[in-house]
Amino acid sequence: MSDNQIDTILSQLTFNGDGLVPAIAQQFDTGEVLMMAWMNADAVRETIKTGRVCYWSRSRQALWRKGESSGQTQSLTEFRWDCDTDTILVQVDQIGVACHTGRRNCFYMALRDGEVTEIADVITDPDELYSK
Amino acid sequence: MSDNQIDTILSQLTFNGDGLVPAIAQQFDTGEVLMMAWMNADAVRETIKTGRVCYWSRSRQALWRKGESSGQTQSLTEFRWDCDTDTILVQVDQIGVACHTGRRNCFYMALRDGEVTEIADVITDPDELYSK
Repeated sequence: MSDNQIDTILSQLTFNGDGLVPAIAQQFDTGEVLMMAWMNADAVRETIKTGRVCYWSRSRQALWRKGESSGQTQSLTEFRWDCDTDTILVQVDQIGVACHTGRRNCFYMALRDGEVTEIADVITDPDELYSK
Repeated sequence: MSDNQIDTILSQLTFNGDGLVPAIAQQFDTGEVLMMAWMNADAVRETIKTGRVCYWSRSRQALWRKGESSGQTQSLTEFRWDCDTDTILVQVDQIGVACHTGRRNCFYMALRDGEVTEIADVITDPDELYSK
C-alpha cells in the first residue's frame, strides 16, 4: 500500500491525547484473543506496510516490533477498527506464543467459582504452539 | 460473591490515571470480539455481582449498564484479565447485537485489498441475532 493510502486510514482513526489507540490482537483462525497493546500512527503505518504487527511500547517509548527479539511474530491477516474509530482489532497469525510469560495468550487470570484462577499454563510442548 | 472477594479482585487490577481499565467483550461460544469499552472499579464490581456487564461511559461520566435501555444485554460467562493486570476480557452471551449501529460487533471497518470496506451489515433478520 502507498503512504497516501495509509494516510487515508490513519485519518479515519481517533488517537487519544497521547497519540495512541488500543489494539486487540486475535488469532485469525481460532478467535482466541491474544493480547491488547497500543499503537501510535507510526506503528499503524508499519503494521499495514510490512504485514507484521508493530505496537508502541509505552514503557520504552519506542516502536515495539512484536517478536523482533523472540521470533514470536504476528503476521497480519486483517486490519479492522470499530464504530467509534478509537479501537483497532488486528487479526493475526501468531508464531509461538503471544504472552511474555510463555502462555498462548495474556488473558490467563480468571474468576472461577469465586476464586482467582490461572486458567492457562506456560507452553512446554512445541505441538501446542501456534504456527511454527 | 461477597464485597470482600470483589475487593480482592479489584486489588489485582491496575487502573489508569483516570481510574479506568479497558475491557474487551467476546462472545463466549463463537469467539467473536464484540466491542471494547472501559470499566472503573464500580463497573467491575457491578459486573461481577450481577453477572450483567456494566461499563463506565467516558462521554456520560456514568455507569453504563449495557443494554439497559435497548434490552441488548451482555450476560457474563467469564471474567478474565491479562498478565499486566491492565486489561479485562469479559466473555459474554450477547443478547441481540453489541454495536449501537445494529451490527453484531463494532469492528466492521476493515482494510481489504487496499480499500476501506464495511464488512458487516446492520442486522435486519432476527435469525441472525444472538440469543433472543
